[in-house]
Amino acid sequence: MLPDPLLHLVELLARLPGVGEKTAQRFALHLVAERSGTARALGEALAQLGERVKSCARCGNIAEVDSAGQAVCGVCRDSRRDGSLLCVVAKVQDLLAIERSGAMRGRYFVLGRLLSPLDGIGPDELPLERLFTRLKEDGVREVIVATPSTEGGVATALLLARELTTRGVSVSRIASGVPHGGDLEFADQITLGRAIEGRRVLDSR
Amino acid sequence: MLPDPLLHLVELLARLPGVGEKTAQRFALHLVAERSGTARALGEALAQLGERVKSCARCGNIAEVDSAGQAVCGVCRDSRRDGSLLCVVAKVQDLLAIERSGAMRGRYFVLGRLLSPLDGIGPDELPLERLFTRLKEDGVREVIVATPSTEGGVATALLLARELTTRGVSVSRIASGVPHGGDLEFADQITLGRAIEGRRVLDSR
Repeated sequence: MLPDPLLHLVELLARLPGVGEKTAQRFALHLVAERSGTARALGEALAQLGERVKSCARCGNIAEVDSAGQAVCGVCRDSRRDGSLLCVVAKVQDLLAIERSGAMRGRYFVLGRLLSPLDGIGPDELPLERLFTRLKEDGVREVIVATPSTEGGVATALLLARELTTRGVSVSRIASGVPHGGDLEFADQITLGRAIEGRRVLDSR
Repeated sequence: MLPDPLLHLVELLARLPGVGEKTAQRFALHLVAERSGTARALGEALAQLGERVKSCARCGNIAEVDSAGQAVCGVCRDSRRDGSLLCVVAKVQDLLAIERSGAMRGRYFVLGRLLSPLDGIGPDELPLERLFTRLKEDGVREVIVATPSTEGGVATALLLARELTTRGVSVSRIASGVPHGGDLEFADQITLGRAIEGRRVLDSR
């Protein structure tokens, strides 16, 4: 019922994460109907995207391409960062979330994926060699594994702990527990179990 | 923290209906990271959108622009349609939903908006003159008002009924009641009230 160019647009929009065909159709119809030129502006921004933004060659973070065609992100360029401390995350969004917290003074490494045997992602599918090279080049002494508290995230953290400690790197894992401001009454039992397991001595001095 | 071209893209994506900044950022990061060329294809599709797809000049439905630069939709071009029967809807999505039902043998008129005094949309902001012209040109004898069962939809339907009956057109409203397959136990009281109010005699002949 929709004309071909619109069907094509719907199909492309449906490739966005979490967007099904109905939502994609809603987006497409909105873009046709609105008159402020969003469709055209979005078209131009997307056409230039590949040339202007790339994954950082060092860590996988988002980086703007410089005049020499190189893409190194702001975190990797920041000379005040502690190069001996590396935080391993699953995806760029996690890196951004940690940066917002302001709690990380080292640099990052984005895995891009987690172990997931059901999806055919084993250790060989993780960019471990690139990580090892990075550790050597930067003289990394401590790695903080900030993968999510999911099955794949935990399995990946264990794999990294095994691989990295044999290379003389100290490996830690971010704490799991009750979120700040969270009500214990509504916390699930696994979270509560982890919060108790990971308890720390209160220093009253 | 994100490079400027990406921030610009996030801002544009956040203009899509129902998309906030977080979702827009998720879309943008996905488009940067994926390698199948979706960003470029989407960019091209959007750049051409304005020239290839427009609102139908007659009814407001989505229409492909023909070689002469005219946009008349498939429903308006379909000569088997009953031109004396016109269905008035709020938006293109509603037209598409009714078309999928296959129950409409006439043509359509998309209002584009509903009465909403709080948003400053009064009768003068509705395309009534265009609707009256359409009625005269096509010799419309019956109008089915298929605006939603919301406050604005009902108010618009009443306005149309008043304006159109004085012009000698028979005006009806789509039925409101329990959806097909819907369990009465879970229907809200307004829906149930309307279903009883709108009851029809069962012809047992």
